[in-house]
Amino acid sequence: MIKKIEHVGIAVKNLEKSKELFKKLLGQASYKTEMVESENVTTSFFKIGEQKIELLKSTAENSSISRFIDRSGEGMHHLALHVEDIPKEIQRLENEGFSFVSKTPVKGADNKMIVFLHPKTTNGVLIELCQEIK
Amino acid sequence: MIKKIEHVGIAVKNLEKSKELFKKLLGQASYKTEMVESENVTTSFFKIGEQKIELLKSTAENSSISRFIDRSGEGMHHLALHVEDIPKEIQRLENEGFSFVSKTPVKGADNKMIVFLHPKTTNGVLIELCQEIK
Repeated sequence: MIKKIEHVGIAVKNLEKSKELFKKLLGQASYKTEMVESENVTTSFFKIGEQKIELLKSTAENSSISRFIDRSGEGMHHLALHVEDIPKEIQRLENEGFSFVSKTPVKGADNKMIVFLHPKTTNGVLIELCQEIK
Repeated sequence: MIKKIEHVGIAVKNLEKSKELFKKLLGQASYKTEMVESENVTTSFFKIGEQKIELLKSTAENSSISRFIDRSGEGMHHLALHVEDIPKEIQRLENEGFSFVSKTPVKGADNKMIVFLHPKTTNGVLIELCQEIK
């Protein structure tokens, strides 16, 4: 079951400038910055209620974030939904006709296993499913 | 103060098809569909934890949603942040150097007064501030 929005991911070009911008916007500083080598990004998190805003800055020329920015500019990149049993949720969504970028969960930022649904089956929205690693 | 994400707005071409899609994705049906004449949209809401997903379908050829879809296709359109005192928050953000699409709050969907920050000052993210009408 999908129980909550975990975070909204925003692609940015300059992480330091964007951290400053979102600090002003949200009235509080980022609480964590982390490199995610598997995804070629550096990410910074802001807490807002029970949700998070994740800023994503590419660390490689051909990463998915740099390709996203080349195509669409900076902006909202993905919507992450919290699940408690990621293999079960992948199975449920496959049965419902959704497709995945890859069906094998990988370790993402913030101590989570993650997978992405393919945006062609989700109205152009890149949806991440994420489950806390215990 | 900005205390929580209120909803994520998603621009869609076909509301009935997208309602069906998000029903399958989220495992629950939309609980409300509403026309917002001031914005030339019909919107449908899904509840997910304390947040909402809002699907937006244009009802006029030159609405901001139809222009968005012409430019970028379907996908995430805006991020709405809940505030308790919208004039005070507009003032605070102006002092911080943010600009607004319009500084006059208007009645939006879901019984709220809303304003939009200009995406050029927010990393390309269209941010809505919204306050419940009492």
